[in-house]
Amino acid sequence: MAAPSPIVRPAVTPVRTSIATVCLAGTLPEKLDAAAAAGFAGIEVFEPDLVASSLRPREIAAAAADRGLIVDMYQPFRDLDSSDPMRFSRNLVRLQRKFDVMDDLDTDLLLVCSSPSPDAVADDALLVDQLGAAADLAAARGKRLAYEALAWGRHVHDYRLAARLVSTVDHPALGTCIDSFHILSRGLPPEPIADLDPDSIFFLQLADAPLMVMDVLQWSRHHRCLPGQGGFDLPRFMRAVDASGYAGPWSLEVFNDVFRHADPTRIARDARRSLRYLAETTRHELAVPDDEILSGGEVTAGDVVSIRIAAGPTKAPQVERMLSQIGFDLQGVDSATGLRLHRDADVAVVVDPSAGTVWTAPGSEVATIAQIALRTGDPAAWARRAESFDVPVAPVPVPGGDPDAAGDAVVRLDVTDVLSVDLRGPVSRSLWRDRFDLVPRDRHEPAALFDGVDHIGVGVSPADWETAMLLLRSVFGMRVEEGMDIPDAVGTLRSQALTVRTDTGGTLRIVASLLPDRMAGTGPVRRRGGLTHAAFACSDIFAAAAACRERGLRPVVIPDNYYDDLASRVDLPADVVERMRREHILYDADGTGGEFWHFVTPTIGDDLFFEVACRTGGYRGYGEVNSAVRVAAVLAADT
Amino acid sequence: MAAPSPIVRPAVTPVRTSIATVCLAGTLPEKLDAAAAAGFAGIEVFEPDLVASSLRPREIAAAAADRGLIVDMYQPFRDLDSSDPMRFSRNLVRLQRKFDVMDDLDTDLLLVCSSPSPDAVADDALLVDQLGAAADLAAARGKRLAYEALAWGRHVHDYRLAARLVSTVDHPALGTCIDSFHILSRGLPPEPIADLDPDSIFFLQLADAPLMVMDVLQWSRHHRCLPGQGGFDLPRFMRAVDASGYAGPWSLEVFNDVFRHADPTRIARDARRSLRYLAETTRHELAVPDDEILSGGEVTAGDVVSIRIAAGPTKAPQVERMLSQIGFDLQGVDSATGLRLHRDADVAVVVDPSAGTVWTAPGSEVATIAQIALRTGDPAAWARRAESFDVPVAPVPVPGGDPDAAGDAVVRLDVTDVLSVDLRGPVSRSLWRDRFDLVPRDRHEPAALFDGVDHIGVGVSPADWETAMLLLRSVFGMRVEEGMDIPDAVGTLRSQALTVRTDTGGTLRIVASLLPDRMAGTGPVRRRGGLTHAAFACSDIFAAAAACRERGLRPVVIPDNYYDDLASRVDLPADVVERMRREHILYDADGTGGEFWHFVTPTIGDDLFFEVACRTGGYRGYGEVNSAVRVAAVLAADT
Repeated sequence: MAAPSPIVRPAVTPVRTSIATVCLAGTLPEKLDAAAAAGFAGIEVFEPDLVASSLRPREIAAAAADRGLIVDMYQPFRDLDSSDPMRFSRNLVRLQRKFDVMDDLDTDLLLVCSSPSPDAVADDALLVDQLGAAADLAAARGKRLAYEALAWGRHVHDYRLAARLVSTVDHPALGTCIDSFHILSRGLPPEPIADLDPDSIFFLQLADAPLMVMDVLQWSRHHRCLPGQGGFDLPRFMRAVDASGYAGPWSLEVFNDVFRHADPTRIARDARRSLRYLAETTRHELAVPDDEILSGGEVTAGDVVSIRIAAGPTKAPQVERMLSQIGFDLQGVDSATGLRLHRDADVAVVVDPSAGTVWTAPGSEVATIAQIALRTGDPAAWARRAESFDVPVAPVPVPGGDPDAAGDAVVRLDVTDVLSVDLRGPVSRSLWRDRFDLVPRDRHEPAALFDGVDHIGVGVSPADWETAMLLLRSVFGMRVEEGMDIPDAVGTLRSQALTVRTDTGGTLRIVASLLPDRMAGTGPVRRRGGLTHAAFACSDIFAAAAACRERGLRPVVIPDNYYDDLASRVDLPADVVERMRREHILYDADGTGGEFWHFVTPTIGDDLFFEVACRTGGYRGYGEVNSAVRVAAVLAADT
Repeated sequence: MAAPSPIVRPAVTPVRTSIATVCLAGTLPEKLDAAAAAGFAGIEVFEPDLVASSLRPREIAAAAADRGLIVDMYQPFRDLDSSDPMRFSRNLVRLQRKFDVMDDLDTDLLLVCSSPSPDAVADDALLVDQLGAAADLAAARGKRLAYEALAWGRHVHDYRLAARLVSTVDHPALGTCIDSFHILSRGLPPEPIADLDPDSIFFLQLADAPLMVMDVLQWSRHHRCLPGQGGFDLPRFMRAVDASGYAGPWSLEVFNDVFRHADPTRIARDARRSLRYLAETTRHELAVPDDEILSGGEVTAGDVVSIRIAAGPTKAPQVERMLSQIGFDLQGVDSATGLRLHRDADVAVVVDPSAGTVWTAPGSEVATIAQIALRTGDPAAWARRAESFDVPVAPVPVPGGDPDAAGDAVVRLDVTDVLSVDLRGPVSRSLWRDRFDLVPRDRHEPAALFDGVDHIGVGVSPADWETAMLLLRSVFGMRVEEGMDIPDAVGTLRSQALTVRTDTGGTLRIVASLLPDRMAGTGPVRRRGGLTHAAFACSDIFAAAAACRERGLRPVVIPDNYYDDLASRVDLPADVVERMRREHILYDADGTGGEFWHFVTPTIGDDLFFEVACRTGGYRGYGEVNSAVRVAAVLAADT
């Protein structure tokens, strides 16, 4: 068990944080409340939010100031330039009306987008003239314009051209706005940002996005997400921004359909967390308004030491029978909590037979994975790190007993109702020994089937998805692997694997699957055919299958058609395929020597199942190619 | 009131219908049950469905035959050709294994897709050789190959090239498969299909899709839909197929994420309906297995004559107060049902104060629009038409009373819990007079504010969306307008307007909004700020506003910021903007002379509201640009 080493940081640059009101749902006062509560120092006021608000601009400025928020920018001003001189004149009149609003809003900065209109100016010289005219007007009113190249601008859609135009105009009231989405969505290299005059960069807007092949306007308007939630290389982008010498605010501008109907307080907290994540990866410290600099610290994930299953009274016996059949032995019962500990060498599964605990919805008795515990020698370091990411660290009441009886402090990652990670309770071996009266076992005794946990599969609702991705990547330093769309008899699952190397050189793997809303609800997951699972790792799949068979397991029966098809498409000896058929073992190969052999138990309560897996040759998948066969086999057994 | 005229059909060609098992959710037997129940004559067996099935191929053939289904095709066979001779040899061995499966499946036709692989053959001559070799093998086994150009095939992605290759091979065991998705998704013209040798077209696969700018493979795998649910011009496509002389089955192959977790019986019924819709637009009759040819007939929609509101006892007084404030008068109460009729000239609104009716979820008292009634002189023709599209025509029990007391036969379009259309009950004026003891009113009396219904807005859940689109387009002959994405303070609404000219020359307009799943549930809609609404048409918005004000209406208060912004962007006289500000009138202009003036009532029970609208100059929208302002104003009033 390696002790986490404190991070050695170079000198850090404080930065101010800001957020566009469009990122958050609700009325404008609700947005301001959320931004302030999350610790943002400033806001960008999005014009449609202002237009729709019953607060007058002056009242908005006061409401922001009351909450300690600076109005960093008013945005956006569209379609400034025009090849039609009359229209351009009208646009300048419209611009002056916005300066009136900005006077009341108490902000001097206006975002001006490059025009996507058919009448956008194509001639650089004319564009320079028009931008210059606008800058003159702005200067006369004490205002500044941040000119931004929209990714779908008609003529100006490259920040380098926008910067060149600004440089040519050479006016103190005209600068650029650098937006990560508009740059990275077009695949533009961020490095030239480093060469820009930092005084000409009036503002920095940040957004991530999942990598998608689609129309950039639709991508931008519906699918942006927070840094650390998508696929852009924002650390690379920030290195270029840093190198330019830019010292202004970091602001988030995220158009996201899920965020638009989510709790703004939660999104604002995620947003602040995303900037901290970005700051960590680029060695910044964020200056928070009250000057309290939170100091986290890096930690390294330990291996999975236990999995806690919220089973409820009726499902608990089924879960325990299944665990027994795959090699786990009951090791002890905590009289205070009723928790029942099952072990196979170093792997523990804790079954919670209480219902209505913090881990299950009241009255529900769907068995599901409630917590994953990682081994660590320094829970306090984890707690500090969690706190630095604004993850609440709180004692969790013990189910079924006196809340103080075993009041372990645990870090609950409030990811979903399904996934939370217990960092400081059961990871303490001595505490476990005391609680369950355990004797340490020799890990080489014959009964040990498993080398550890291969992966954990959990369902995450759309409302929780981005939060979960960000938490796992930030607090746990996990890396997102390539996403998978897995069709089966009951739907298409969008799954995302996250991995991180553990302190023993192993790999912690979590496969999160996006649940359709209808299946998420507020309680545990229910998906015909099952979804939540723990896969235990073994080194000999046939030996494991035989051992489980002897212990009474009847794995899910894989159809003969599967083996006929397998034989027609892979080069396995016929006798091996026959053994697999008898033991109901599924198979995948990655074409480069990696193989995955696995069998699965039936589902318990329409969701939970266990899997036994053997991974060789650097195989990096999860046998997802066999998922549809597994689901169909479970359904066939049910009917 | 124009009587619907019976359709005069040219000679019709009977066609057989088929469906790929991949279109439907569930186990293979469940899929077969659904296909048979919907009246399909054949199926395509999708290989992954076979591989995952516990039924052996011979059992699948028997299960299909038991249900009267012919196995028209086994599919797909991928990556046949290869520039690597060794791999091509292995592919031929793999092909022979599939012939073994097909022997048991009792089908002679195999779909062979063009290869998207890096080793796909680029040289036409070599490809002809390899296709010929495969055809020789097939012929020897009594099999046939239908070669299809995948839209993302590496070298072959145009059906014209596939057809040319097939023609060059000139082998009786080799033909093409024509798939509307692969052709229309690439924007290929369908007309050249007409020139193909009909004997070389071994199979026809049909799918529609919403028009999207995205990667064609992802589009194909997740977003296909049934004919009449998307944006492809399938009638044009079918005219070309017809002209070729093709006389084989029409088969549906639709990969759709929503269908994958929907009830397969419902999707199969929609699928059969979609072919009937397509047959009608192309003057075919579908041959159904039992030779019962359903005869529908065209009808023309009448104007909206009444809107039924399921209010429940607590909300009914609020709804009635609101109706009174916008000019409706209570005209009568049906003692048998408790229904309360409000009228303004030709427009009637029926308020249902009972809860737990067929229109509302038990115990719910959310007021919402339950039914829309259209005027017609020939309800029997509508019933015949509905029946021809497999829409159940059944008596609906009357709420709150003896089910037989007023047991009107109504055509319930089972679209959603929100939208159903009453075609034979309240549309009968004489029946209404009897029931509510009405005296026909002079439509020109002063109290008449409205000319009719401008549009109806309803929420539709994702699970119901495609069904709703197809029903409205098929039974009602409605046309889909351009879709709209409307962001506001509580989310982004994807809305789709459908329109149809009525028999009086008016327009029936329904705006369907896609509800996020979490808001759909099984009961009525709940969306902060409201969604369901009826907009009544007037010819003088200021007169209407004054009349409503005198009747006590306090419309939703539109913020001053809106009018300031409006004044800065449109050319309206200042005094007009001031009048609008006082009366809380919203505005939109389409830039070509069309204008839309409207004001809205507060929401009742978090959903329903009414709107008064004045549409001039051929304006075709719905004032959707003001939607965010309306929602924010409602939220601001709530807080």
